[in-house]
Amino acid sequence: MAEQPELRSLKEGDVFNGFLLAQEVAFKTSAKGSEYLELKLADASGELKAFLWDLRAIEGDMDQVAVDAFLKVKGQISVYNGRTQLRLDKVRHAQDQEVGDFSRFFPTSQRPLAEMVQELDATIAGIGDPWIRRLLELMFVEEPLLREAFCKAPAAKSLHHVYLGGLLEHTLSVLDMAERACGHYQDLNRDLVVAGVLLHDVGKTAELTYVRSFGYSDAGNLIGHISMEADWINRAVGRIPDFPEELRLLVLHIVLSHHGRLEFGSPVVPKTPEALLVHYLDDLDGKLEAMFRGIREDAGQGAWTPFSRTLERMFYKPRWPKIP
Amino acid sequence: MAEQPELRSLKEGDVFNGFLLAQEVAFKTSAKGSEYLELKLADASGELKAFLWDLRAIEGDMDQVAVDAFLKVKGQISVYNGRTQLRLDKVRHAQDQEVGDFSRFFPTSQRPLAEMVQELDATIAGIGDPWIRRLLELMFVEEPLLREAFCKAPAAKSLHHVYLGGLLEHTLSVLDMAERACGHYQDLNRDLVVAGVLLHDVGKTAELTYVRSFGYSDAGNLIGHISMEADWINRAVGRIPDFPEELRLLVLHIVLSHHGRLEFGSPVVPKTPEALLVHYLDDLDGKLEAMFRGIREDAGQGAWTPFSRTLERMFYKPRWPKIP
Amino acid sequence: MAEQPELRSLKEGDVFNGFLLAQEVAFKTSAKGSEYLELKLADASGELKAFLWDLRAIEGDMDQVAVDAFLKVKGQISVYNGRTQLRLDKVRHAQDQEVGDFSRFFPTSQRPLAEMVQELDATIAGIGDPWIRRLLELMFVEEPLLREAFCKAPAAKSLHHVYLGGLLEHTLSVLDMAERACGHYQDLNRDLVVAGVLLHDVGKTAELTYVRSFGYSDAGNLIGHISMEADWINRAVGRIPDFPEELRLLVLHIVLSHHGRLEFGSPVVPKTPEALLVHYLDDLDGKLEAMFRGIREDAGQGAWTPFSRTLERMFYKPRWPKIP
Amino acid sequence: MAEQPELRSLKEGDVFNGFLLAQEVAFKTSAKGSEYLELKLADASGELKAFLWDLRAIEGDMDQVAVDAFLKVKGQISVYNGRTQLRLDKVRHAQDQEVGDFSRFFPTSQRPLAEMVQELDATIAGIGDPWIRRLLELMFVEEPLLREAFCKAPAAKSLHHVYLGGLLEHTLSVLDMAERACGHYQDLNRDLVVAGVLLHDVGKTAELTYVRSFGYSDAGNLIGHISMEADWINRAVGRIPDFPEELRLLVLHIVLSHHGRLEFGSPVVPKTPEALLVHYLDDLDGKLEAMFRGIREDAGQGAWTPFSRTLERMFYKPRWPKIP
Amino acid sequence: MAEQPELRSLKEGDVFNGFLLAQEVAFKTSAKGSEYLELKLADASGELKAFLWDLRAIEGDMDQVAVDAFLKVKGQISVYNGRTQLRLDKVRHAQDQEVGDFSRFFPTSQRPLAEMVQELDATIAGIGDPWIRRLLELMFVEEPLLREAFCKAPAAKSLHHVYLGGLLEHTLSVLDMAERACGHYQDLNRDLVVAGVLLHDVGKTAELTYVRSFGYSDAGNLIGHISMEADWINRAVGRIPDFPEELRLLVLHIVLSHHGRLEFGSPVVPKTPEALLVHYLDDLDGKLEAMFRGIREDAGQGAWTPFSRTLERMFYKPRWPKIP
Amino acid sequence: MAEQPELRSLKEGDVFNGFLLAQEVAFKTSAKGSEYLELKLADASGELKAFLWDLRAIEGDMDQVAVDAFLKVKGQISVYNGRTQLRLDKVRHAQDQEVGDFSRFFPTSQRPLAEMVQELDATIAGIGDPWIRRLLELMFVEEPLLREAFCKAPAAKSLHHVYLGGLLEHTLSVLDMAERACGHYQDLNRDLVVAGVLLHDVGKTAELTYVRSFGYSDAGNLIGHISMEADWINRAVGRIPDFPEELRLLVLHIVLSHHGRLEFGSPVVPKTPEALLVHYLDDLDGKLEAMFRGIREDAGQGAWTPFSRTLERMFYKPRWPKIP
Repeated sequence: MAEQPELRSLKEGDVFNGFLLAQEVAFKTSAKGSEYLELKLADASGELKAFLWDLRAIEGDMDQVAVDAFLKVKGQISVYNGRTQLRLDKVRHAQDQEVGDFSRFFPTSQRPLAEMVQELDATIAGIGDPWIRRLLELMFVEEPLLREAFCKAPAAKSLHHVYLGGLLEHTLSVLDMAERACGHYQDLNRDLVVAGVLLHDVGKTAELTYVRSFGYSDAGNLIGHISMEADWINRAVGRIPDFPEELRLLVLHIVLSHHGRLEFGSPVVPKTPEALLVHYLDDLDGKLEAMFRGIREDAGQGAWTPFSRTLERMFYKPRWPKIP
Repeated sequence: MAEQPELRSLKEGDVFNGFLLAQEVAFKTSAKGSEYLELKLADASGELKAFLWDLRAIEGDMDQVAVDAFLKVKGQISVYNGRTQLRLDKVRHAQDQEVGDFSRFFPTSQRPLAEMVQELDATIAGIGDPWIRRLLELMFVEEPLLREAFCKAPAAKSLHHVYLGGLLEHTLSVLDMAERACGHYQDLNRDLVVAGVLLHDVGKTAELTYVRSFGYSDAGNLIGHISMEADWINRAVGRIPDFPEELRLLVLHIVLSHHGRLEFGSPVVPKTPEALLVHYLDDLDGKLEAMFRGIREDAGQGAWTPFSRTLERMFYKPRWPKIP
Repeated sequence: MAEQPELRSLKEGDVFNGFLLAQEVAFKTSAKGSEYLELKLADASGELKAFLWDLRAIEGDMDQVAVDAFLKVKGQISVYNGRTQLRLDKVRHAQDQEVGDFSRFFPTSQRPLAEMVQELDATIAGIGDPWIRRLLELMFVEEPLLREAFCKAPAAKSLHHVYLGGLLEHTLSVLDMAERACGHYQDLNRDLVVAGVLLHDVGKTAELTYVRSFGYSDAGNLIGHISMEADWINRAVGRIPDFPEELRLLVLHIVLSHHGRLEFGSPVVPKTPEALLVHYLDDLDGKLEAMFRGIREDAGQGAWTPFSRTLERMFYKPRWPKIP
Repeated sequence: MAEQPELRSLKEGDVFNGFLLAQEVAFKTSAKGSEYLELKLADASGELKAFLWDLRAIEGDMDQVAVDAFLKVKGQISVYNGRTQLRLDKVRHAQDQEVGDFSRFFPTSQRPLAEMVQELDATIAGIGDPWIRRLLELMFVEEPLLREAFCKAPAAKSLHHVYLGGLLEHTLSVLDMAERACGHYQDLNRDLVVAGVLLHDVGKTAELTYVRSFGYSDAGNLIGHISMEADWINRAVGRIPDFPEELRLLVLHIVLSHHGRLEFGSPVVPKTPEALLVHYLDDLDGKLEAMFRGIREDAGQGAWTPFSRTLERMFYKPRWPKIP
Repeated sequence: MAEQPELRSLKEGDVFNGFLLAQEVAFKTSAKGSEYLELKLADASGELKAFLWDLRAIEGDMDQVAVDAFLKVKGQISVYNGRTQLRLDKVRHAQDQEVGDFSRFFPTSQRPLAEMVQELDATIAGIGDPWIRRLLELMFVEEPLLREAFCKAPAAKSLHHVYLGGLLEHTLSVLDMAERACGHYQDLNRDLVVAGVLLHDVGKTAELTYVRSFGYSDAGNLIGHISMEADWINRAVGRIPDFPEELRLLVLHIVLSHHGRLEFGSPVVPKTPEALLVHYLDDLDGKLEAMFRGIREDAGQGAWTPFSRTLERMFYKPRWPKIP
Repeated sequence: MAEQPELRSLKEGDVFNGFLLAQEVAFKTSAKGSEYLELKLADASGELKAFLWDLRAIEGDMDQVAVDAFLKVKGQISVYNGRTQLRLDKVRHAQDQEVGDFSRFFPTSQRPLAEMVQELDATIAGIGDPWIRRLLELMFVEEPLLREAFCKAPAAKSLHHVYLGGLLEHTLSVLDMAERACGHYQDLNRDLVVAGVLLHDVGKTAELTYVRSFGYSDAGNLIGHISMEADWINRAVGRIPDFPEELRLLVLHIVLSHHGRLEFGSPVVPKTPEALLVHYLDDLDGKLEAMFRGIREDAGQGAWTPFSRTLERMFYKPRWPKIP
């Protein structure tokens, strides 16, 4: 794929000619009865509305202009009422292979992947408890498909860390907090906590779909990520001779209970200190990320973000200045 | 064990000499400072309070007079204020082997076990879908330990079908209703429904303890019966080559969702007609059994049973006469 | 009324000339300030959007083009983005008498009415308990207005069985399941259950309006169908000399408690086995119908129906193949 | 019945010889195995614990010493740890006719009955709307049984106004507040409000039992007082030719909705200003009475009453001094 | 400002030339790509939609055509589908000083302000308890800024009494009911009740913004009106030497608990009769005002108002005729 | 006070002669009618039941043997059924001054007070933001009464850290975790977080009573600790000229919102990252402490603690061995 500017960098009057991902596609009829095309197009830097007023300017099969397809588009940027739009002259469907590296079209974690993977591996390698270390090696190191998916998946469809690599970034953020918490609450079993943190959302790799737009897989809707995680842990344990049954239950207990309450989808509530800790730190990390992101990304005037459906409140944006 | 009368048959003045199960044991101090022993003793027919006023009448180690132990006791029945009591003259701990058949000391299903097992086997043998039949055979026919436990476990600790064999009786009762429902709602996949019914509570065999008094196992408290069932189904599926993935998900979905709502411990809600049906019929059967039992067993005067904690209400006892 | 094609059968380019029911009517202003008319038109087979771009093409009084009126329209079918639309050339209000049989314009039960009425009558005639039989005869056989309404009403405004005849169809479906349940739970009083089933929603005939679009009557909003049913039962009982007071209470109890919980509008919870059963089977039938209908009617791609507000979830559409 | 002192007036050392109502009866066994009798005995002024240490002192049939029976007792008052007790020397069952006026044994409204009845009648006579006046006359004036019961019933089993005449007193208290509210919110239909107030709890006369101790009748448990009221209103309306249907619905609506929310047993929520007012004033009156009574009757030290289960809180007892 | 007609009085074809408040401002793009301006304009009598199809007709800076600005507009009234619209020929931003008296552009209490202030002052002057009187004088009489704001603020952003002066009107309405209630429940401390009523919502003056459109202030969102009231009461008390500590707590308790339940934002529930009363009368007054206003202002056909989000129900509009 | 052994160290047969705190006092009547005294006596190491069978052995005024009094007792230890008891020979009331250092009779934090105070002071001194530092100095350093109370109060009446010094220990524990969290989530304003942590429960010093047994003060019940804290912060801010209003709101917001949800008594929910963090870490610390304490202190057999009312669950006691 040739170089093309990022959407975020475009200004009024710029001509754009390149590939974009179609997030929304609507064929509409104007009041006069003429048809036009309204799109939401995206690359990794952002998204904008685009309009094609003459459908004859579509090259090739109109049916291929569909959600989650890549489009080759040409048009000009206009700005109305503060919002950037793209008035299109040409649209055609693009093959995936034309597009090259998908990562240019999806929001992606700010943290370098290699750094995160190294942190994951170092954490696993540093675990003292041989059973726990072996269990985690089997899953995160020796299963390449899971390892790859764990590096790619978002942490959620819409609540927090909604970008490629978000699951790993969220996991490592909880992990860092968990290490700190184990430094403070010294009765906690640190290795057990680490296992619980690394495993608590690993099923998201199969619960969510994230090849193109983010959604739920059939299996995700039918059984959910917690049940997947339990299954995978049981399979891995089955491959480790003499794995202690009590440890299996303790690890499963953290994973099963990490939503904290039955009404949030955990079939049991946390009954060990390690499970209680993982629940709190996971919940805190997701909500803090959503709050920081909401504050950072809101370009609007006024002291308050829009109402956040994730936390069911607005956030106060002004930050009291830090004094070192 | 020699013959001994059932507790339920005892009358004031009768002398009882035999084995009983200790359900509650309390060493108490009277107002005058003397110690005495207060027991709740049971056989399969019922239970009563028993008192030993002179602890010197205990033969052997006093510490062995403990909950869930069998005791050899001798004493006389007295009745105060409508309640039968046993005033003990002698108490000693009894070895399990002295006691013989345990079933004489625990409440047990009224339905003959052989009949129930035959019904289970015939149902499995009659399943048309080969994958579903194979899955059920693997679990209920070819795993002798699970089969034995499934025949013995109660259906719950306190809510409904609280007796040995209660799990199987409850399962078959739901099964019969499910067959009838499949006759009515003909779009239901009957084989899938049958699988869901047979599997929905099978984890109770390990969630509950029922060798002596009924309770929860450690694993039961830590991960719950639904997670156990999912694990066992996954293991069995893993032993059937080419088992269809979609069918695995559909069966798991029924099992995981059968409590109907997240706050009742299901990590997902029913999203297929079969899952919805199994949830309703399971819930109905448990509640109806509790209600019929409450009405049948309440010997009290008045039109109402005591407040049932299971259903959070009293039941109306008079039955309107049936006219054939 | 002359023959006219069903909406469902129309294809792009077809010319339609006939009567349709106006479900939605909106006079809108285009960006250029010209007015146009946007309609939702329906017959029993379905509904579609229709547009009239020139209001001068309305014959007669424009105010009569209103919701729930019949319209005579002429226009051509076009298809944009997968959705069929009708571009109108002519519109006029039609008198009810022009239209003929209303049933061609409203969704109607698939079951033949005569068959359902026969089933109702046979059930009542077959009741052994003379008091119960007499009560049901008085209400369902000897009150022609109620009988007629009971044959016509839908079962609900939006949740399940939302079509003419839906109330009777739902009632008979619950009845069939109830008969089957009485075969299984043999302590149930079958005649009492039948009475409860037949009466549990009879007040819907007055709670809902269904001459044109479905809605709630004033009385429906002010007192609700359960209170109406109780009133009607009391009136009928008042006409049967020596009707047993306990039976009156038992029948009322089923009706009053059939929503199962206070927060769903039942002033009492079920306290007899018969009331418990009717509640469960009613609830199950409504939800299963909504689920089967949602699955059957969703023409969309993908494995999941749209989010159902009735059950607050999506349904999984693929049906595992039945094997006989 | 000869004169006897009120329980409230008794002091340590006093000898009591007279009739009392048995509210609780328990035959117990002492640690030494001897039986004794523990009673809660009451007259209208209060209640106390009583003990009979030698059962041979019971004259006549021991089984007649039962809850809700009158007993003739002789004994002496002792005070331990601040609580007054009665140590009995003699106990025998007493016939109701020996006892004379029951009102001496049950808590009774402080307001003179005649005054309350006069207020009720004057209110009804003063209603301007002829339909509403006729409806209320039919129920409260011309049905002697209902009138008598309305004068006698308590307002609740345990929440508020729990004494004979409490229902009438509560009704009139709400009525007085309602008259005041109609003076303030002048758009309210005063006659409709009065009807709603007088009728809102009239079903308590049949929902509760209050011949001896207060409880729920079978009908009360099976259908509840709101459904009874609706039934009685419908019957009365049926006896008034041409009673306006809309008025019937408006009156029923107030009665049905007066618990304010579905989860409190109202099948509909208040949708007219009159219904909203009656709900609030009824709720306020019951809770204020409970709070004032709790404060007045608590003899304990400290600033707080015991936890009130009615309002789920303690009340602050010190009253800030009024300054005229 | 010259005279101009009220919006409510305009009819089709009228030409309007005057000042209006911009409540909503949207620059939109028509299907043909041309831009137009859609406004919601208001004066105290009402609001209407307005359209400017040619943006060149805007005089001066387009950015000043913004929400909460006054605009000088000229245009003609048209009526489509029952809704009045204004088709604009000219639009320009107007300075606040051109506009003159703001009260002509915002909904305002119907009660004359002077009358309400007199009632407030007379009530405070008439309080017998010197501490309470002094506290209220300090806040409502001697703090001119608070006094002015208390006269101007609405009672809420959207629930009830949503107009200038609404807070004072609501407070006096609750006050009048409270005086009546103290006449009925004579154990209430009337002066304490009066203090609670006057203070219960005084923080709304700072929680809400109401210079232009109504909203929440930053402080309102961050700490809420109840915490502001508590702060102000504490400050005022701090200026009254020897103010009794118990009275401070009793007044604070009413204010803190007046939402009645924790989930409605009260940190404590009412534990004194005075606090309970203030909660009920406040709640009743707000809901009754919302209901009466909903009924009065709904011009629609049919017996029911639109669904009220405040009370989560529709209201029944027909008023049963009063008979004097 | 002379030396006396700790209760925890006593063994069967030991004679105890010393001072103890009376936590419960009950004068009871034995079955034979004789009175005796049952006590719960405590020192800082624990508590036990004590019995005095002959009330004549009480020296001095019997009424002074009351809850929260110190008693001088002499008696002998006996052990029944695993529970240690004290059979008393002599009891008399003791003056507070006889007893000496109260800390010997109440459970007290394990952490040395001096160390904790030093940590508090160092934290405050180390705050970079001058406004925040000044505010905290004013409250924690320069108000000796508050400083003393803050060092003495428990953190709660029954939930967690229920011992003298518990409030300070809990606050410092949350503080340490908060510092760690600020190291991880670097966008947090650390000084603001520190202020929120130190202030979040400071009102407990006045909400609770802890001179003897722990309970709620009148002010605690009437307005709660959150309102007290807000008041104190406002007073302190009032003494700091030019304190920034936004900072006042931000600090108040953390304190007001730290219970996280309205139904837990916070009048607002956390709307800043700092407020969200303080809520989570406070909640986590209290629950973890309760869980660790529950596990540590449960001497019972079996893998599970008794049901914890604080967390509404049992805890799993076995700790998986840590491997360094």
